[in-house]
Amino acid sequence: MRQSQLFTKTRKEAPKDEVSINAILLTRAGFIHKEMAGVYSYLPLGLRVLKKIENIIRQEMNAIGAQELLMTTLQDPEIWKKTGRWNDSVVDNWFKTKLVNGNDLGIANTHEEPMTAMLREFVSSYKDLPLYTYQFQTKFRNELRAKSGIMRVREFLMKDLYSFSKTEEEFKEFYEKCAEAYMKIFERVGLGDKTYRTVAAGGSFTTNLTDEFQTLSEAGEDIIFITDEKKKLAINKEVEDKGDGGRKSIEIGNIFPYGSRYSDALGVYFKDEKGKNKSIFMGAYGIGLGRLMGTVVEVLSDEKGIVWPREISPFNVHLLVLTEDAKSFADEVYEVLTSRGIEVLYDDRDIRAGEKFADAELIGISTQVIIGEKAVKSKMLEIKDRSSGKTREMTLENLINEFNPSTLFRIKK
Amino acid sequence: MRQSQLFTKTRKEAPKDEVSINAILLTRAGFIHKEMAGVYSYLPLGLRVLKKIENIIRQEMNAIGAQELLMTTLQDPEIWKKTGRWNDSVVDNWFKTKLVNGNDLGIANTHEEPMTAMLREFVSSYKDLPLYTYQFQTKFRNELRAKSGIMRVREFLMKDLYSFSKTEEEFKEFYEKCAEAYMKIFERVGLGDKTYRTVAAGGSFTTNLTDEFQTLSEAGEDIIFITDEKKKLAINKEVEDKGDGGRKSIEIGNIFPYGSRYSDALGVYFKDEKGKNKSIFMGAYGIGLGRLMGTVVEVLSDEKGIVWPREISPFNVHLLVLTEDAKSFADEVYEVLTSRGIEVLYDDRDIRAGEKFADAELIGISTQVIIGEKAVKSKMLEIKDRSSGKTREMTLENLINEFNPSTLFRIKK
Repeated sequence: MRQSQLFTKTRKEAPKDEVSINAILLTRAGFIHKEMAGVYSYLPLGLRVLKKIENIIRQEMNAIGAQELLMTTLQDPEIWKKTGRWNDSVVDNWFKTKLVNGNDLGIANTHEEPMTAMLREFVSSYKDLPLYTYQFQTKFRNELRAKSGIMRVREFLMKDLYSFSKTEEEFKEFYEKCAEAYMKIFERVGLGDKTYRTVAAGGSFTTNLTDEFQTLSEAGEDIIFITDEKKKLAINKEVEDKGDGGRKSIEIGNIFPYGSRYSDALGVYFKDEKGKNKSIFMGAYGIGLGRLMGTVVEVLSDEKGIVWPREISPFNVHLLVLTEDAKSFADEVYEVLTSRGIEVLYDDRDIRAGEKFADAELIGISTQVIIGEKAVKSKMLEIKDRSSGKTREMTLENLINEFNPSTLFRIKK
Repeated sequence: MRQSQLFTKTRKEAPKDEVSINAILLTRAGFIHKEMAGVYSYLPLGLRVLKKIENIIRQEMNAIGAQELLMTTLQDPEIWKKTGRWNDSVVDNWFKTKLVNGNDLGIANTHEEPMTAMLREFVSSYKDLPLYTYQFQTKFRNELRAKSGIMRVREFLMKDLYSFSKTEEEFKEFYEKCAEAYMKIFERVGLGDKTYRTVAAGGSFTTNLTDEFQTLSEAGEDIIFITDEKKKLAINKEVEDKGDGGRKSIEIGNIFPYGSRYSDALGVYFKDEKGKNKSIFMGAYGIGLGRLMGTVVEVLSDEKGIVWPREISPFNVHLLVLTEDAKSFADEVYEVLTSRGIEVLYDDRDIRAGEKFADAELIGISTQVIIGEKAVKSKMLEIKDRSSGKTREMTLENLINEFNPSTLFRIKK
């Protein structure tokens, strides 16, 4: 799209009420808007990144046989009473509301209860299991203090997957499969190098040990000890304090083993080959999309601004035209790239070249295509990689040839 | 996907607590799950339809220059107090909740206030206007009685677009453009023939006359009088009662002209060419996605089940294999179609052919490909159009050739 049409603008100054790098950069670059503490809207650039993250997760969850659906935000208290989690002393960050008739309603804190209860309609025999459901749905957490920008908020989009298995072995098999899929996701969003599968305590969700996925960052609230650098394994300080050598990290995903707790509490069973009622082994697998996006900003940004990895860059290309004389050539490049399915943000604004450069560095689109006066004659485009800062020259034809449909847009290195 | 893997199942019996055709058929076919009165989850088949409707709307909204973003569900009461709409006597179907510290929060009933307030950061000059924003976001309405299946609910996904214009003329120009885009959307989801642009009263949103888009259906709650069949124009009975000849209809979209009401109340102005502060003319343009889906079911279903128009069919093709002997050929057809990007639901279950036919009619995928014993030798596929019931025979190659990438999958008629 033409940047002159984009309604958001960049700002030079950091917002006064933000301290985290992710909130400062994402606000300055026009990706998010703060509605109130811990509640952020996603502006056009931010929504594009969020959707790309969503699509990566969707591909990897479909690849392991999970089925996407969409549960609701309004929840019936009755099913939560059966598991004992309606009480505010058990789950201390509920938002609740009331129907006109005065009846209580829950506002989705999580979805284990309704997801399990729904399966009563569809699961009766061992032939119906295992099954895996997931969704992208908003969670609401009544946090006493919201902080860390879009990483610890009161309202956030989450991918939550639930596994329902006949036996513990069957459960563990999928659990490992999902852990592998998680590492693929973190690799694709650009966090693979710094992310560790980490043994952790289950918090309020379970008394078992669980797996977390932790990304090294000074902005993190956790401390992990790396136990195997090659296999990307670590242990959370809350499980075992190994003294020195702990690194600050951000939790970007988790997996909880529940055993048959929800199946038993909600009376959802299956009949085995002999017709005997059996409990279902359940697991939950979460990734917060905004948290992931915020972590990418924390970990990969530099002094000039955000650095988006290619797969989640809001556009494939940021096209900058530097002079009035070069505009008609730049228009042509824009039309050709767009017609080939390449997503282009075209800075066609009537402002100084220096301002365009600064905005492009702040916004952080992975590849910049820069067209100045010289290019009009030479027909050579200047291609700049946002991450390395390296530039190369090539023709439009070569640029298009480097477009690889399977990975959207990859410049050979 | 293989139907043996799909966790939902069809039911022969109508659910006891539903009376509307859309809720009965969508529940029986496994598209939706009722969480409680007026609150429905979307199961895998239902979510696929919802996403296709979303994509059609997105394409048409982008085509008229609107920019997609995502506002929040939790809302700050302060901006609602400025427009006088926080009070329950003004907006009588709010859901509200509280922060841990006791402060009130709104749960999104609609988004005029936060959308307008957000623009304070980005609009200052006449150069920043006009601008058009839209989102797909859940609305919550505390209805006293929920009814009509997924058509009048307490929680629903809505496309809401907001236009911000410098003058009333500029506003009207976009208003007409959006009305045309709406008719394209309704055409694409299969409701074009029965849908009328209808003059209506604005309800609690505005005292001006507004435009509604009404689809003729016995399940409708409105009465309209058709004033121009060719131009698809009508007038709502609430505006003028023309006596006999009124038809029942369902409101599937609306447009509200607001004038400068929100701009003035929230103090969002722009400076004109002379540097003078001016009010902004605003409009809102809504389509409820579940309402649209329910209307399609109400209007197009037959005695056998749902009939999805091609563009919003949950899969492009429902592949039915009738005998054990035909399975390896059907497997091959499934693999080939899928590899060509055609979405196939493959009924590979070990059940009688009659059951497969009945399920296919109930689920309503637009094109059925039926493979029996005969097809193994002749290599001719039986292609059945769900809507007309007509069948034809063709080779796999011909079937693939009829695939038109621009419209996903269209069988020539």
